[in-house]
Amino acid sequence: MEKREIFRFIDHTLLKQDAVWEQIREICLQGMECNTASVCIPPSFVKQAADFVEGKLPVCTVIGFPNGYQTTAVKAFEAAEAVKDGAAEIDMVINIGWAKAKRYDDILQEIDTVKDACGGKLLKVIIETCLLTEEEKIALCDVVSRSKAEFIKTSTGFAGGGATLEDIRLFKKYVTGDTKIKAAGGIRSVADAETFLIAGADRLGTSSLLAMLKQEIKK
Amino acid sequence: MEKREIFRFIDHTLLKQDAVWEQIREICLQGMECNTASVCIPPSFVKQAADFVEGKLPVCTVIGFPNGYQTTAVKAFEAAEAVKDGAAEIDMVINIGWAKAKRYDDILQEIDTVKDACGGKLLKVIIETCLLTEEEKIALCDVVSRSKAEFIKTSTGFAGGGATLEDIRLFKKYVTGDTKIKAAGGIRSVADAETFLIAGADRLGTSSLLAMLKQEIKK
Repeated sequence: MEKREIFRFIDHTLLKQDAVWEQIREICLQGMECNTASVCIPPSFVKQAADFVEGKLPVCTVIGFPNGYQTTAVKAFEAAEAVKDGAAEIDMVINIGWAKAKRYDDILQEIDTVKDACGGKLLKVIIETCLLTEEEKIALCDVVSRSKAEFIKTSTGFAGGGATLEDIRLFKKYVTGDTKIKAAGGIRSVADAETFLIAGADRLGTSSLLAMLKQEIKK
Repeated sequence: MEKREIFRFIDHTLLKQDAVWEQIREICLQGMECNTASVCIPPSFVKQAADFVEGKLPVCTVIGFPNGYQTTAVKAFEAAEAVKDGAAEIDMVINIGWAKAKRYDDILQEIDTVKDACGGKLLKVIIETCLLTEEEKIALCDVVSRSKAEFIKTSTGFAGGGATLEDIRLFKKYVTGDTKIKAAGGIRSVADAETFLIAGADRLGTSSLLAMLKQEIKK
């Protein structure tokens, strides 16, 4: 696979708590240069980033992130604000406590409420696989597939574990319809990226784009 | 110090991403039993907890938590929602990237905006000391002291480091007026609690109340 082909699957990500504009600006420049799928950045930088990239690169941000236990009203408000600020894609975290309590109908309703607040923009649903049992992951594949969201996503990167190939294969087996898959957390090389794409991921979240750029690319 | 005296300084805390109502309910029962200062729980449980404790125990929750990089509008909305749901105390996280960029006026304005949204309820401001330099901590002691918030607080417990005695002594030296101090993260024993109170903390955030209950208490 050509280098360029891999980059177009990547959400070029910087979600460190102490990131400053100069770093976000760099990420935007690299994203435009490499034609990544998006830049994924904190909500408080979305407006400035969207103004900076002038429509040349989708700006993605995170909602209910990373712990997922905000109220539905807050997540919906946060999504609407992000879209107003210029976000083209929203990555939300489910209420993980609700998954543990098997409140799957509440999770479905929350996803659809947030999607309605997105005004047509793309919604990815982070289920935080490292905190879930296999049974819960399978149930959530069904929930996200039945929701209005476009993507199911593995991880925030803040809960101690990232994407695994087993999880991507499980998603691939259990999601239905046209639900897409985003793998995030721990993808650090071109080889990793290729492996996750082959396993069934449609999108990759990584903060290692520069490391990938420096690697030799297999043709 | 009597056991009871220590408990009244404690925000009895459960902020795990996958906490379920049964655990929150236990925390509420323990808080009422031990007369803790509050229970500190996720926003999505505030309404149910406030209904459950029926005014017998202040319910505290977290805003912009733990990464702090939501927009000001979102933090204010989140605070207002939490108060509407029954929260008596709000622990907010500052925008740490703004501190790194020395945008202290923006931080001050955000704190006051959130405080206005709190409708008279208590506001604690988490500066996340483990990500800051000493210079930044001192500057933020000044910012929080000049703001309308009641407390400065050390840590979320989610960024790799908790309260240190050095930080509490630094806060004590540099906060002005009637700004109070909350130490959080890593306080696991009655001895820890006493040490932090002696160093100058007015409030302690800990999830180790039960461990403390089981210890012998120094009279």
